[in-house]
Amino acid sequence: MTTLYQKFHQLRSNISDLAYTHAVLNWDMEIYMPRGGSDFRSQQIATIAGMVHDLSTSNEMGDLLHQLAADASLSFIEKRNVQESMRLYERERKLDNDFVKHLSQSISQSYKAWMEAREKNDYLVFAPMLKEVFEMSREKAARYGYSSHPYDALMDEYEPGMTTTRVDEVFREVKPQLSAFLDKIKHSPEPDMSILNGHFDMKAQEELCKLLATGLGFDWNCGRLDVSEHPFTTSFNARDVRITTRYKENNLLESIWGVIHEVGHGLYEQGLPPEQYGLPCGEPVSLSIHESQSRLWENNVGKSFAYIETYWEDFQHAFPENFKGKSAKEFFKALNKVEPNLIRTDSDEVTYHFHILLRYEIEKGLIEGSLDVADLEEIWNYKIKEYLGLDVPNPKVGVLQDIHWSHGSIGYFPTYSLGTFYASQFYHYADKAIPNLQANIEQKNFAPLLGWLRTNIHSLGHQYDSEDLCEKVCGEKLNYKYFDEYIHKKFGQVYEF
Amino acid sequence: MTTLYQKFHQLRSNISDLAYTHAVLNWDMEIYMPRGGSDFRSQQIATIAGMVHDLSTSNEMGDLLHQLAADASLSFIEKRNVQESMRLYERERKLDNDFVKHLSQSISQSYKAWMEAREKNDYLVFAPMLKEVFEMSREKAARYGYSSHPYDALMDEYEPGMTTTRVDEVFREVKPQLSAFLDKIKHSPEPDMSILNGHFDMKAQEELCKLLATGLGFDWNCGRLDVSEHPFTTSFNARDVRITTRYKENNLLESIWGVIHEVGHGLYEQGLPPEQYGLPCGEPVSLSIHESQSRLWENNVGKSFAYIETYWEDFQHAFPENFKGKSAKEFFKALNKVEPNLIRTDSDEVTYHFHILLRYEIEKGLIEGSLDVADLEEIWNYKIKEYLGLDVPNPKVGVLQDIHWSHGSIGYFPTYSLGTFYASQFYHYADKAIPNLQANIEQKNFAPLLGWLRTNIHSLGHQYDSEDLCEKVCGEKLNYKYFDEYIHKKFGQVYEF
Repeated sequence: MTTLYQKFHQLRSNISDLAYTHAVLNWDMEIYMPRGGSDFRSQQIATIAGMVHDLSTSNEMGDLLHQLAADASLSFIEKRNVQESMRLYERERKLDNDFVKHLSQSISQSYKAWMEAREKNDYLVFAPMLKEVFEMSREKAARYGYSSHPYDALMDEYEPGMTTTRVDEVFREVKPQLSAFLDKIKHSPEPDMSILNGHFDMKAQEELCKLLATGLGFDWNCGRLDVSEHPFTTSFNARDVRITTRYKENNLLESIWGVIHEVGHGLYEQGLPPEQYGLPCGEPVSLSIHESQSRLWENNVGKSFAYIETYWEDFQHAFPENFKGKSAKEFFKALNKVEPNLIRTDSDEVTYHFHILLRYEIEKGLIEGSLDVADLEEIWNYKIKEYLGLDVPNPKVGVLQDIHWSHGSIGYFPTYSLGTFYASQFYHYADKAIPNLQANIEQKNFAPLLGWLRTNIHSLGHQYDSEDLCEKVCGEKLNYKYFDEYIHKKFGQVYEF
Repeated sequence: MTTLYQKFHQLRSNISDLAYTHAVLNWDMEIYMPRGGSDFRSQQIATIAGMVHDLSTSNEMGDLLHQLAADASLSFIEKRNVQESMRLYERERKLDNDFVKHLSQSISQSYKAWMEAREKNDYLVFAPMLKEVFEMSREKAARYGYSSHPYDALMDEYEPGMTTTRVDEVFREVKPQLSAFLDKIKHSPEPDMSILNGHFDMKAQEELCKLLATGLGFDWNCGRLDVSEHPFTTSFNARDVRITTRYKENNLLESIWGVIHEVGHGLYEQGLPPEQYGLPCGEPVSLSIHESQSRLWENNVGKSFAYIETYWEDFQHAFPENFKGKSAKEFFKALNKVEPNLIRTDSDEVTYHFHILLRYEIEKGLIEGSLDVADLEEIWNYKIKEYLGLDVPNPKVGVLQDIHWSHGSIGYFPTYSLGTFYASQFYHYADKAIPNLQANIEQKNFAPLLGWLRTNIHSLGHQYDSEDLCEKVCGEKLNYKYFDEYIHKKFGQVYEF
């Protein structure tokens, strides 16, 4: 006899089959699709997306969920799956097809306007469509509903349970502390960057990337590494996780630490429980928890001196000309140089968060109506000067640099910083729990750390929202101090204070 | 106002979006998917296939078709789309979900049994499941219905409109004529095969394959070439057509003429009318017409002396060591050697058709009940001896060599020969219609031939069934004599008679 819960699981699995198929179509489009195929591919993707929406908001799904919500016999995980699915079902039902179609058209036009504005290096070309996207986002927030701030409703898509009040609380510490820290660095001797100059053979980069990914525990039987214009991770199930990177002859850091970052995302996906396929407890918690995994491996592990030192022979072997007569210490210092940069994605671990603060403040202001899209370029440039001391020469390296707003992704940026802060906090508690974590890393043994993450985070799927998970793992909610401690220790090594 | 016909086109497009998505999942599975992903991928593919079946046989589709069938205002192409869709709808409705599921399970088990039987080189391991597959195929034929022979109903899936009576009629000429021709060849001096020995650099093979594909007119903006274990062509729409091949250092012919063959399939798909996407008139006619395109480019063009001679410099450039001091004529003769081979896919243009005859006779006998699965190995070996004069040392190179039966593809084999015969007939009429076709080929100018195929075949989609198309293009139905003339002329050059 098929139980109600089994029927529900089956329906969710069917939805996931479609949703992951959608992901395959996207992956192929980014990596292998010939250009001519794009029109029909867009149509195929839209058809699948529509079917996912229809099934997710179907009366069949609603009936199952309402019956299961009253079933007291369900286990903890079953209850959680029903409860979280109910939340998603109710949220999706709040947007009717007309609104979804209108939003999707605005986003398409806004993306085109953004591309054109970048080409012409003129913010005014983008402004009218950006205004519409923000207006529709306010409308979306109103439809979703919220208790204290409309921005809460938007963040909820990326970061369930997170509120504007809470982000404000966390970020309140960031600006003064980071500013003081940046000031300290400015008065310290700069690392010698010459070790990063020159050409790095791209084939050797690729081989080293694979070696490092293997070392961290990326499972090639359940994953791939390909080349794409913009690096990303995608998953079609826990047994098929795909990461990408790009190689440039004059930039070693981008490919190597780009791959380590994506491997972090990939290890999370590979560690999700396959038997929960299709259900919330088989899926990642949130963007911040996802980012905590990529940043932990990229920064806390991959950019540590212990990591560089243990792989130094491999680096030297891959690029014998570049690294002849150089030391692991020089390389470690150079790759960790702190220097304000106009571009978020090119920024170091410290100044990166000023970029996020700025975007968060702007998004919140636009959504609550205290800022105006027309003034955005001016506001942007003012804040960049204030936070980073830089002059913005043109909008392409300023307000037009990110794709997110043109895509209607409002409420996404804060998760980058929250994830980074979680990374340091998780690393701190992993270090407490694992005997000799540092010594393991020095021996290229990442299994204990990965095992700890698997047990405490990956294998749980979305049993808990971000901060509840953090509390369960660390015994406390998100706490900025662990990131602060981490950068003091790490950049103390780099800048010798 | 949306017309009924537009609604019908929209529904068919949605079905095609899903069906082509299914093709993307399969393509990725064959080429890039990590092994670990196979279980979930199979599930995702099954879900999509089920949705295609449900939409194709939905009452909505039925209602639209029945209303449109009575609409006298439709154009010729619109009528044809409705009529052919009705045929497919009615056929699919004849198989209920239980039967489809049972058949699909039998096929899965039979495929496993076939793999195991090949491993053990023991036909008896496969026989029980093969018996079930043939029994279910008879049941399927009964459900589909037929007027004269149950085999007609099965062929109909691959070759709409073709009948067993008509195949018998065409094939009746083949056996005696080919036997006599083979006898003639046996008494002629053999070509020197030494030019094909040695190692052919695989990178050079790949580059030459791309050069030749480009030369024939394969559009890389709307297509790709990848590597897979078994070469195939797949299409996700006319603007995204993918072919594959495999490279072996000791076998130049397999990759080069394999690619030319797949390019032939690919050119057909790239030439289908995009505005008919989702509708029969945007799809290929049948397997035989598809095969006519691959064989025409592979054999009638690609293995002609004119083709070899015009590309001889490129061959020499790609493999300078192999072809030093050799002539285009030697190469032409060697690659066209006729020699009975136990394996169908390794067979030459002449003896190939004995393989098809044998399989056709066996399939027909099993479906009508005049042969028994238990006797199949014996029958196979007997016929191979009779037609090709060869002894079958073991079933792996005999009755177990093809995947088709294990897949339940009964009625497929005849289309290989029919397609080859169509190829010679189309080429004959193209040669009559195009001024200086031979001279064009000698100048690497394939545009006139491709243009003729585009106009007369590709751009029509499935406006006509195979023989009706042939009659429209050639003024007569399928006629074996053009193939007979072609091999006499071609192998006359090879064997100098």
